[in-house]
Amino acid sequence: MRELSEFAPVELLVCTTCRRGLPIEDDAQRPGTLLHKALEQADLPTGVELKAVECLSNCDQGCSVVLRGGPSRWTFVYENLNEADDVDVIVEGATKYHATADGLVPWRERPVHFRKNCAARIPPIGA
Amino acid sequence: MRELSEFAPVELLVCTTCRRGLPIEDDAQRPGTLLHKALEQADLPTGVELKAVECLSNCDQGCSVVLRGGPSRWTFVYENLNEADDVDVIVEGATKYHATADGLVPWRERPVHFRKNCAARIPPIGA
Repeated sequence: MRELSEFAPVELLVCTTCRRGLPIEDDAQRPGTLLHKALEQADLPTGVELKAVECLSNCDQGCSVVLRGGPSRWTFVYENLNEADDVDVIVEGATKYHATADGLVPWRERPVHFRKNCAARIPPIGA
Repeated sequence: MRELSEFAPVELLVCTTCRRGLPIEDDAQRPGTLLHKALEQADLPTGVELKAVECLSNCDQGCSVVLRGGPSRWTFVYENLNEADDVDVIVEGATKYHATADGLVPWRERPVHFRKNCAARIPPIGA
């Protein structure tokens, strides 16, 4: 078994402009921003870098995040995430993704929300 | 103005396993495979490489394609594409994407189908 440190670092991209379909006042913090803040406080493993991004263009199914990590891993987009309820789901999914070389966590080991709310997956660049 | 040849090559990934929500017999060709075949015959510009991929995991909104191209371009996933009607749309969208350094075709210049059927966009790796 290989050490995790042999694998490429992982990026967890969070769309911070997401309104999650809600009518948000201009001076209020958006659900995507709140999700990013919650993840800053969460227990993400070393090797998973949290990044704020503007608009993943999946606005009707937000909040959304992306997991990607180097030229050998599949990239995944997950949707319908709630800033209040789904932080643990994202941490679990990111941790398991980080522990793979190719990004493909076995189906039954993926968080149920991830199984049911995958917007898209994109093959590795180096495949 | 820079020459197109200065930009990184573009990949057009087509999900060939897509059933486009139809009940497809086991021995029949799938809509995704037919879309890939139609694009093989289409007038894609030099520098856009067509690639068949298995399952982009956007099955409910297929057929789906991905446009990506090097570390400086945004990646886009487009959905609800029909193998019979949308080949020209994909060629137009891929051609315009290829003509950008960052993958961001101005909104009004994008094919209408692309504007209305973007499943997700993912920022450049090198950004």
